[in-house]
Parts: sequence; C-alpha cells; structure tokens
Amino acid sequence: MDLSRFLSPITEALAARHYGDQPLELYEPIRYSMSMGGKRIRPLLTLLGAYLYSDHWQQLALNPALAVEVFHNFTLLHDDIMDQAPLRRGQPTVHVKWNPNVAILSGDVMLVRAYELLFDIEPALLREALQRFSQTAAEVCEGQQLDMNFETRPQVSIAEYLDMIRLKTAVLLGFALELGARLGGASAEDADHLRRFGVDIGLAFQLRDDLLDVYGDAATFGKRVGGDIVSDKKTYLLLTALERANEAQRVTLGHWLGLNSSETAEAKVRAVTAIYDQLQIRPRTEALINDYFQDALAHLDLVQAPAERKALLRGLALQLMERES
Amino acid sequence: MDLSRFLSPITEALAARHYGDQPLELYEPIRYSMSMGGKRIRPLLTLLGAYLYSDHWQQLALNPALAVEVFHNFTLLHDDIMDQAPLRRGQPTVHVKWNPNVAILSGDVMLVRAYELLFDIEPALLREALQRFSQTAAEVCEGQQLDMNFETRPQVSIAEYLDMIRLKTAVLLGFALELGARLGGASAEDADHLRRFGVDIGLAFQLRDDLLDVYGDAATFGKRVGGDIVSDKKTYLLLTALERANEAQRVTLGHWLGLNSSETAEAKVRAVTAIYDQLQIRPRTEALINDYFQDALAHLDLVQAPAERKALLRGLALQLMERES
Repeated sequence: MDLSRFLSPITEALAARHYGDQPLELYEPIRYSMSMGGKRIRPLLTLLGAYLYSDHWQQLALNPALAVEVFHNFTLLHDDIMDQAPLRRGQPTVHVKWNPNVAILSGDVMLVRAYELLFDIEPALLREALQRFSQTAAEVCEGQQLDMNFETRPQVSIAEYLDMIRLKTAVLLGFALELGARLGGASAEDADHLRRFGVDIGLAFQLRDDLLDVYGDAATFGKRVGGDIVSDKKTYLLLTALERANEAQRVTLGHWLGLNSSETAEAKVRAVTAIYDQLQIRPRTEALINDYFQDALAHLDLVQAPAERKALLRGLALQLMERES
Repeated sequence: MDLSRFLSPITEALAARHYGDQPLELYEPIRYSMSMGGKRIRPLLTLLGAYLYSDHWQQLALNPALAVEVFHNFTLLHDDIMDQAPLRRGQPTVHVKWNPNVAILSGDVMLVRAYELLFDIEPALLREALQRFSQTAAEVCEGQQLDMNFETRPQVSIAEYLDMIRLKTAVLLGFALELGARLGGASAEDADHLRRFGVDIGLAFQLRDDLLDVYGDAATFGKRVGGDIVSDKKTYLLLTALERANEAQRVTLGHWLGLNSSETAEAKVRAVTAIYDQLQIRPRTEALINDYFQDALAHLDLVQAPAERKALLRGLALQLMERES
C-alpha cells in the first residue's frame, strides 16, 4: 500500500519547519530531534482521518498533524532524560549530545511549538481540538509516570500494565486519528469510533514492540534482542509468564530477575526466553494483539466513510501489526 | 493600597483548582508547587488589566489569570531542576522532595494545565491570546537558556544581561497585563502600551531583586544576603562594576571571582560590596530602576482608561519598586 501521497507533505513540512533561532542551545536540539526520522505514524493517522471525509485533507489537517508529531517527539526527548537513554534511533540522545538542562528546556519549547501548530484550526473546532489535545497530553504524561513507578514496584498486574501502555502510547494514536477525522468533518460518533480504532491499534502496536524485543530479528529490529529481559522490564511477556509459571519456572525467573551483570546477560536472555517458550508466551501475546486488531477493525466498520478510503487505514494498521522493526 | 478585592478570587480559585488525581507522583508535586504561595503578581496584573475596561473582570479574566500563574510556577519548577536549587520559598524544591524525573514530568503537565486554563476565553479572542501566550512562553525559555549560558561565558555585556532578564522575567509580566486588557476590551494600541508598562516594571523588578541580594535586609529578604556575589552571578551590579572598575578594583574583583570556598564567603561578600560602594553601584542601579519605572508610567499615561482604575496599576508597580523582599 502506497501512503507516500500522505507521507510526503508531512516530511516536506517538517523539513521546512522553523522552530526558532536564538539561543542555539535551545533550538538546535529541536531541529536535531525532529530530523531523526521515524515512521511519522501519528501525523499519517491525522491526515488519513481527514481524508476519510474531505479532499481538502492537506489544507485542513497538515499543521495539526505536525502538532501531534512535534508533541510525540517532545515526549521522546523528555522520556530519554528520565530513562537515561543514551541512543534514540541510533543517534545520541539530546541530554547526552548536549546536557540534561538543554534537553529539559528545548523539550519545553517543543511542547509550546506543538500547541502553536494546533492553532491552525478553524474557529468552530479550535477549542474542542485544544481540549482533547491537552487531555491526551496529560494522559501520556500519566502513562510515563506509571511506567517509571512500575520499575520499582514489586507487583504489577497485567491490567495495570495494559492501562499504562494505553496512556503512554495508545491514546495519542487514538487522538491523532480523531483529530484528523473531526477536521475533515466527521460526526462526533464517527470520530469516537476512529479514536477507539487508534487506541486499539496503539495497544497492539506496543504489544508488538514487546514481542519484537524478544522474538525480533536483531538486524531488522535495530535494537539488541532481549533488551527488556536484560533490564527486567515488566512487559506483557514477563507479567504473563510470572502469572502462568509453575513453581520451578517461578524460581528460575526469580533467579534471573535482578541479576544484571553484563557477563550473564546472554545467558539471562536465553533462560528467560526458554521459559517464555515453555509457557507459549509468544502465541498468547499474538492472540491478544489480534484481539485488539479485530476490535479496531470492528470500530472502523462502523465508520460512515467511503470503503476505499477506510481501506488505507486498515492497510496502515496491518503494516504496523506485521512490522519487523 | 488594597488589592485584596482582586487577590482573593485568585487565592480562592487556586486553592479550589483540580489538576488531576492519579498517579499521585504526577499530581502531588503540582498541588505542592501551587500551594507554596508567592505574591501572585502576574494574575493580579491580568485582573487589573481587565478591570481597566470592564466591571466583568472576574468572569472575563480569572481563569486566564490563573493560566499565567500556573505557567509561571511551571517555569520555577523546571528552573529549580536546572539550577539545582534546594529550596523555593523556604521549602524543599520538587526535584529534591521527590526526584528530578518527577519534577520534569509534573512540570510538563503544569504547562498543559496552564494552556487549559487559557481555553476559557471567548472565541473571538482565543487564537490571538493563545498565540501571544505561546510566543511569551518560548521567550521565557529563551531567557532561561541565556541565563544558563551566561554562567559559563567569560564576557557578558550589560545589554545582553538586560535582554536576558527581559526575556526571562519581564515579558511574562507584560503579557499578563496585555492579556487581561484584551479580555476586558482594550484596543490593540492600549494593550500594547500596557504590555510595555508590564515589561518595564518587570525589568525594574528584576533589577530590584539584584539590588536586594546585596543591599537587602537578610531577615526581610528571606534569602542570604550576598548569595549572588558568593556564586559569581553576573548580575547588573557585577557587570556594571566590572565595566567601571579601575585597574586595582578589577584585580580585586578578579581575585574574588571564582574563589568559592565557604570559609571565604563572608569576606568575599564584604570585599565585593566594598567595591560596589566605591563605584556607586547602588545609586546607579536605583537610577536605572527609576528610568524603567518612569518609562512604564509614560506608557500608562497613554492608556485610554479611567484614571482611578489606572491608579491601581501604578500603585502595584510602586509596591513592587519599594518592596524589601
């Protein structure tokens, strides 16, 4: 499926975008962050949402689509400080390349610039769009805080984990699509179905990410396989394994969790993956991904828009489900 | 002058404000920051700006006034991380009481909540208010970045310093007043005079702060006298002294700058203050403060609003000039 017709205006507008000049320490990191690339899924969803209802999708929704992408990159920038991540898409993170203070402050300005891009909405829809954006932004922060809390909490339930990834990842995909739909002229009901389609796809997307960390191809995935296992990250895979493990498996998992020397990292990944295999964690996770995917499609079915335009969204969702990286 | 009629609704609305519930680590720091107190000068300016033109100042401008105060407290929260400040108004800062990650993220949500308070503006004025707010917010961040840059730069000119405090402190006071005026019904011309009144007062306010650090009464000022001298902060006082010093004074200043042991702190404050006295830095700074104050009043004179209402703004400005803390 060729989405370049929608992707090109996004890429071009991002390349041409001016965030500010002086001081350089404030604006260079923004240009750097925005030029790192990425799949631009969120702005694509916004444009495809508008295209469902209008041929003027570019005029109606391009700047708001960029707002969502700038906001997303703001969250990555601040999350990378909090997670002390050295790399993002293979390049040094802003807090490493510059310093944490520069990363905090240039992130703050990115959030402001995201709002500014959103002001390019017709008056009748402006306030609602801004309110929904703000609500979503706060939820994304709530998700990040929960993610950090879970690192040090001994027990996390699967329901809590799913709620965390809903907030941290899925609600923004839902909002991106809902926003575009409203700008294109969707009814409130259609916009809500599309939002829920986006949230379901977002949940499936994050679970796919958890899965790729363990079962992805290192070369294609672009990260070290088993990184989540090495860092004891409480993913859907680990939480499901802990729930389903028998006594012996629980002891083995308990032995490896918290064992964080680099010499034992490979053995740890092998041992934990072996337990995942015994407990059929992969097919179980794939089943849940598929559940969310089917729920998403059910919402899309109810949307009152031309089938051939809805097919683009279905195609993008399928791409995200089948991606190897 | 009694401003309690305007201050009370601000205090009450801030006390009643709901920022969010869960996770606690995200929302407790916001409540903590907003309950620390402060003079609430910025929201006062917004309400007084609206009152110049309308008896419905509370209905028209209260939530936008709170937006400015929440934004201001967001900048304090993030600045305190960057400056590694242990205390704010005598209480532990958020990054100390919780941790830097909590401070980054709860600050992010405060910025979002500030925007939300600004959505309570009639449609005809909403976009302009949001754009001016965003422009001001970016300028405040630029000022903070310049302030950090100046710490490690060997040379800073007085003009550069004044531009930095204009961005970091003064533009927000100008915006607070301009916003209120527009919401009350001011013409673009009046709103601009009021903005410039606010910027001038903001510059005078910050210079007064520089002065109080050296010449304030420790008990009244609430900070240790000479803190800026001890930390080699490039204030208007120091930069003016460096510019006007003779060879011997320059050598003495050069000797003390960079000498940062706690044992010599008192002697350093005495020695640098002695040079300030020789060079008449205090009356020179007071003269510049007065220049800005007179410029501010000249702008206020040109504003087409009832004299008795303008008198409240003049009175507030005078209070800020004469404050001892």
